[in-house]
Amino acid sequence: MELNVALLPGDGIGPEVIDQAVKVCDAIAKKYNHNIKWTTALTGAAAIDAVGEPYPDETHEICVNADAVLFGAIGHPRFDNDPSAKVRPEQGLLKMRQKLGLFANVRPTFTFPSLIDKSPLKQERIEGTDLIFLRELTSGIYFGKRGREDDGNTAYDTCTYTRAEVQRLAKKGFEMAMTRSKKLCCVDKANVLESSRLWRETVQAMEKDYPEVEVSYEFVDAVAMRLVQWPNSYDVLITENLFGDILTDEASVISGSMGLMPSASLGEKTALFEPIHGSYPQAAGKNIANPLATVLSAAMMFETAFGLNDEAKAIRAVVDKSLNEGIVTEDLSGDNKAYKTTEVGDWLVENI
Amino acid sequence: MELNVALLPGDGIGPEVIDQAVKVCDAIAKKYNHNIKWTTALTGAAAIDAVGEPYPDETHEICVNADAVLFGAIGHPRFDNDPSAKVRPEQGLLKMRQKLGLFANVRPTFTFPSLIDKSPLKQERIEGTDLIFLRELTSGIYFGKRGREDDGNTAYDTCTYTRAEVQRLAKKGFEMAMTRSKKLCCVDKANVLESSRLWRETVQAMEKDYPEVEVSYEFVDAVAMRLVQWPNSYDVLITENLFGDILTDEASVISGSMGLMPSASLGEKTALFEPIHGSYPQAAGKNIANPLATVLSAAMMFETAFGLNDEAKAIRAVVDKSLNEGIVTEDLSGDNKAYKTTEVGDWLVENI
Ligand SMILES: CC(C)[C@H](C(=O)O)[C@@H](O)C(=O)O
Ligand SMILES: CC(C)[C@H](C(=O)O)[C@@H](O)C(=O)O
Repeated sequence: MELNVALLPGDGIGPEVIDQAVKVCDAIAKKYNHNIKWTTALTGAAAIDAVGEPYPDETHEICVNADAVLFGAIGHPRFDNDPSAKVRPEQGLLKMRQKLGLFANVRPTFTFPSLIDKSPLKQERIEGTDLIFLRELTSGIYFGKRGREDDGNTAYDTCTYTRAEVQRLAKKGFEMAMTRSKKLCCVDKANVLESSRLWRETVQAMEKDYPEVEVSYEFVDAVAMRLVQWPNSYDVLITENLFGDILTDEASVISGSMGLMPSASLGEKTALFEPIHGSYPQAAGKNIANPLATVLSAAMMFETAFGLNDEAKAIRAVVDKSLNEGIVTEDLSGDNKAYKTTEVGDWLVENI
Repeated sequence: MELNVALLPGDGIGPEVIDQAVKVCDAIAKKYNHNIKWTTALTGAAAIDAVGEPYPDETHEICVNADAVLFGAIGHPRFDNDPSAKVRPEQGLLKMRQKLGLFANVRPTFTFPSLIDKSPLKQERIEGTDLIFLRELTSGIYFGKRGREDDGNTAYDTCTYTRAEVQRLAKKGFEMAMTRSKKLCCVDKANVLESSRLWRETVQAMEKDYPEVEVSYEFVDAVAMRLVQWPNSYDVLITENLFGDILTDEASVISGSMGLMPSASLGEKTALFEPIHGSYPQAAGKNIANPLATVLSAAMMFETAFGLNDEAKAIRAVVDKSLNEGIVTEDLSGDNKAYKTTEVGDWLVENI
């Protein structure tokens, strides 16, 4: 196959981890007789520095015309403590999600047996955890009307959802539940928010179309607790944008393998794949960042965007092998030898 | 002293745990020569059933005229899955918070050495954790304009904050930090929300008035992670209403002592004290609920509302003793004998 991939390295450690994923993808492509055409484009702080815009039109064109987008990370601390900054890297991310229509963010949390001792949770709590969040990504309070009134002394944000937006996301949730254990949890705050009541009633109305799926409804605060207590009691969870932001990050650390968690953001046409970790600016340029989450995101890309399941399996297998043999970066190496980012990438390539 | 306390048992296990706290308070009052006048009033589902209103005016009158309010829990599952219910117990809670002006919810999370093995976290992660959240409780998306449009197919909620609301809460945070380790964390989502940018700039402007306090600013998603990873790295955290709802519940389970965590909600005049656990309807009427969080909330009441520190210490000491001697309800008893709710209450009274 000819695979046309837009490559957005972004900021911080983004470029370093993306480089390893590219090497791995090219090795896989060679083995399975594909040809990947990579087109690199600017995003985030890197794009602000170069062209004054975190998601330039040119980048958007490249993404729209690609079969899939592989993304590193964005964000730079020099923007964080400046509430008045006019242009922020995150705006690029939000604009990209909206313009590409990436309404469903898919975030799995699972455990690697060899890494279970890295979890902050006790083994009996985390063992067997294998859950997936579907976070709505292009609406809610992220994209509602916001502003200041009263000489800047009052600030407001608006959370808006339409029934169609909820249906579209929930449909993916029901479908995913059907391919797994048929358990779906709708996370909301329906005891307070009107938008949550719309979520809940919309999902309730969809239950009849998926009679095999057992749906539960839980408040966001309760889920924030149970994720720490009994993460392995969850399977597929659907939720709105802001709750998803908080809960998926919480979920990402419970397995102890945050540096390994991939994600996908799906739209009607385009799909984007990225590690869930951030741009980790303190580590940038040091060749120490863990590239495995990005490599596993590439595996999701082969599977979800191209329907190439064997290729995805081959990537996951070599990642498992590297973990079992301890070919890992310093975040996972413990008292053993820590490999450099590029060394891990090279090892993966050699072992494909 | 004459102490005038409004007593709101509420729903579910509320009445049972409140009964034990009353016994303990009366025993303390006797020992220290106080006289507590308890005035019981209706709230929650119990009030809906009795008078059709979850926070009746009569209850409000009683609270306003009291020196402090001691509260059990409210909520009943029959309202949860009915998004269209016109009157909900939670509305009573929100109305009460707003009408009593309880703008600062104080929620400590700490560990009891004897219970550290109950934590879902590994011991080295949780040890030494002693943090306090100050959650803004009378504004934000809980109290903003909300509604439906477009024939009910679009729902919205509005999050609004004024600078004065942020200042009032942040002031309590700075003051509390001054009495502790002088570290304050402001939790927001300033990379996306305008209301968060107002929070951040307001707190930044207050830093100069508390030169000794070291302030950090963290995004809510990052805090949701770090609370699981390194809870003992936090001290005082301030945040807005919805983030506080989620994060305080998350924090409450990390110590493994959720059944023991007290809370206070402070206003300009009235202060309310309540356990952080919910109404736990499955356990209602079974005499199995853990009363210690309510008893410890009463300790906070003596200290915070009445300035009676010795009385508070005496309550905490007898609670510690009950834990050390294993006089605990089934949630904590493990393989040992489980005491009934009333038995724990009686034991505390005898040991005061
Ligand atoms: C950087 C930020 C705007 C973003 C979000 O809140 O969506 C990030 O936290 C994420 O989850 O991808
Ligand atoms: C019952 C609900 C409205 C309430 C809240 O969200 O504030 C509860 O979760 C709490 O934290 O006290």
